[in-house]
Amino acid sequence: MTKELGLGLLGFGTVGGGVVAGLQKNAVLIAQRTGMRLALRKVADLDWDRDRGVALDRALLTKDAMEAVADPGVDIVIELMGGMDAARKVIAGALSLGKPVVTANKALLAEHGEELFGLAARHGTNIFFEASVGGGIPLIRSLREGLVSNRILRLCGILNGTCNYILTRMEQKHLPFDRVLREAQAAGYAEADPSLDIDGTDTAHKAVILASLAYGFHVPMDSVATEGIRGLNKVDIEYAADLGYRIKMLAIIKDIDNSVEIRVSPTLIPVHHVMASVQGVFNAVIINCDGVGDVLCYGRGAGRDSTASAVLSDVVDAARDIVSNSKRRAPGFVPFRQDGRIRGISEARVRCYLRLSLLDKPGVFGQIGTVLGKHGISIASLLQKETATGHHAPVVIITHHAGEGAFQAAIREIDSMSVVGAPTVRFRIEDFE
Amino acid sequence: MTKELGLGLLGFGTVGGGVVAGLQKNAVLIAQRTGMRLALRKVADLDWDRDRGVALDRALLTKDAMEAVADPGVDIVIELMGGMDAARKVIAGALSLGKPVVTANKALLAEHGEELFGLAARHGTNIFFEASVGGGIPLIRSLREGLVSNRILRLCGILNGTCNYILTRMEQKHLPFDRVLREAQAAGYAEADPSLDIDGTDTAHKAVILASLAYGFHVPMDSVATEGIRGLNKVDIEYAADLGYRIKMLAIIKDIDNSVEIRVSPTLIPVHHVMASVQGVFNAVIINCDGVGDVLCYGRGAGRDSTASAVLSDVVDAARDIVSNSKRRAPGFVPFRQDGRIRGISEARVRCYLRLSLLDKPGVFGQIGTVLGKHGISIASLLQKETATGHHAPVVIITHHAGEGAFQAAIREIDSMSVVGAPTVRFRIEDFE
Repeated sequence: MTKELGLGLLGFGTVGGGVVAGLQKNAVLIAQRTGMRLALRKVADLDWDRDRGVALDRALLTKDAMEAVADPGVDIVIELMGGMDAARKVIAGALSLGKPVVTANKALLAEHGEELFGLAARHGTNIFFEASVGGGIPLIRSLREGLVSNRILRLCGILNGTCNYILTRMEQKHLPFDRVLREAQAAGYAEADPSLDIDGTDTAHKAVILASLAYGFHVPMDSVATEGIRGLNKVDIEYAADLGYRIKMLAIIKDIDNSVEIRVSPTLIPVHHVMASVQGVFNAVIINCDGVGDVLCYGRGAGRDSTASAVLSDVVDAARDIVSNSKRRAPGFVPFRQDGRIRGISEARVRCYLRLSLLDKPGVFGQIGTVLGKHGISIASLLQKETATGHHAPVVIITHHAGEGAFQAAIREIDSMSVVGAPTVRFRIEDFE
Repeated sequence: MTKELGLGLLGFGTVGGGVVAGLQKNAVLIAQRTGMRLALRKVADLDWDRDRGVALDRALLTKDAMEAVADPGVDIVIELMGGMDAARKVIAGALSLGKPVVTANKALLAEHGEELFGLAARHGTNIFFEASVGGGIPLIRSLREGLVSNRILRLCGILNGTCNYILTRMEQKHLPFDRVLREAQAAGYAEADPSLDIDGTDTAHKAVILASLAYGFHVPMDSVATEGIRGLNKVDIEYAADLGYRIKMLAIIKDIDNSVEIRVSPTLIPVHHVMASVQGVFNAVIINCDGVGDVLCYGRGAGRDSTASAVLSDVVDAARDIVSNSKRRAPGFVPFRQDGRIRGISEARVRCYLRLSLLDKPGVFGQIGTVLGKHGISIASLLQKETATGHHAPVVIITHHAGEGAFQAAIREIDSMSVVGAPTVRFRIEDFE
């Protein structure tokens, strides 16, 4: 006997259109697989006229999201409005009615997760958020359920398709950042205002969600040391390649002595590592666990149908819980570690790529080596390119591990030296070891 | 309030030891994350004396698996005995008592899945089998739940760590098959009798499980066209590399016009594809879906702690179902497509690598080209190496797509020609397109 569940969709934009299209295309398949029919009962959006490429019974439409939430025919609320305040209000409204909420709103969960998950618990219902990180990759589910018996030692992710597309194009076509960004905007891979992506905020939102889930406490956004890819110089991509590395926008989350290090930045990774082969708009996460070792999940991190797939997988989960009368069977987030501690970036031990601009005369390199040595930084490899222009030559150094603070201090000292022609460029290196 | 669930472990071998170790190490973490304490109540094995590297209260031990199954303190049965008849009997016994069963027994599910899943349904309980394919990779869960709204178009997997280890070593160290097999046996990566792995049966078992899950009917083992890697010649690995390919033992499952093609064989894949970077004992599966596109899952496909991680994730799932009184919330296997059709290998359209042994004199290649052309096979690229020995030279051909039957007929014809010095070696090519 097939049961029917009513869905209320808030936000009929790109992903909302994908959800409607996915239901229309595969509702029968879903019903066969799960024994449940998912019926769209209300769709809320302010704009009724834009073409979403799917046909929809206009009787389902409303401009009032709270009307959709409160509709007695709506069993599950899907929030795809995006943004903060309005989304927060309707999600809170749905949870207060005991209705499970499926959302792709990473910013909202990263900023107000504590409040919303608390509300879900108090009202005996649940929040599902597979679509918030990694698009259609079944990542949240894998982390929370598939790896439930594992201590998460390290989690590294390429989580922003826009950044990865830009870095891939810059590398493959030897193009400068600004030109590739404009191309990405024209192709729809970057927003008109690209800051959220290229400055790393979006990646940081996702990192906060993954870290909170892995470590059982609400990791605050301001604990993420975030650097973006804005203005990245293509020479660094080329020098990195010469040295066997590729630059990826990486979220890195590590458990070190029971405290959590969390940072987002363009990072060099070994070109032969499987993460280096993640190209274009694809996302990937590699999770290192005490039981299973490395697990990698890879797929389309954004896009209409990919994100809709994650939303629908959550809808099915929520529907199963309703049918089996167990809405809190597997809570979306369990705050099990109230004493969770964040480790400041200054405590990190890292390896780095340094590009220095040095006066081309004898003895200069010795001065640099002395400064690095004083800060406990030793050199693993070195690359000096001949340069036809000016008196300063670029020198690239790959270091061994040292404290993040040591690097900051050494660079400050180096950049104040008279033989240095421009500020030192630095990227961290991740070896996945 | 933490609930306690009782576990009965059948089979205290390598993976069984890993399950006990995993519980001892992370039971507190699991309890924090899930609100459930997992308590080992019975452990059944014939051999009580071998050292498993974990301490275990001997009062839990029994030699009688059915005693463990029937023990009223046992809520969930974990079958890690392996083998067919005995495992089938105890699983049937547990299901008949309404107890959920967690198993890693791919051979049993591939051969007797229909009977066992039917029994689970009749007794209102469930079978969990994450550990049966891909070791610790959360693959079954991703396929069944994460991708539930997607039609599965194609699924390709490197599913046998022994084969992948052998192929990787052969390629990286330029070693012959027999020597690498002996090394793998010495290192514990291959069994004393390696047939199950190297002849492809183990990969076929796993392919059957994945195909059944993806397409909703019990795919029979004898429908898998299976070729192994036994005796693979290292020159083919080298020629493939020259042409931009790597040889991987691949399971390929495709939905073509609503019928399922399923085959297992050493296969050439493009060296730049992410699947080509899966090395050593790692496993990976790439799933192509109508919604999300390509999703890849990668990790350790075997080994004590990796497989134990998958077992424990299933135990948590089963425990959640018991606690929420919903043992059939998400049935392990739903036979929703009774009319599922298998497509014979002869219907496949494939691209191939052919290595011919040809008499080194004018006109010979023209004769071969004529035979291939007659069978509708056209040549994409060609490699002829100079050879110092004998009158016959190896010629390697990469073809365009043609029918599998055409290849078989063409090779039969070629191998009967007087200018051909040895049977033609053929591998299929997978471009993931």
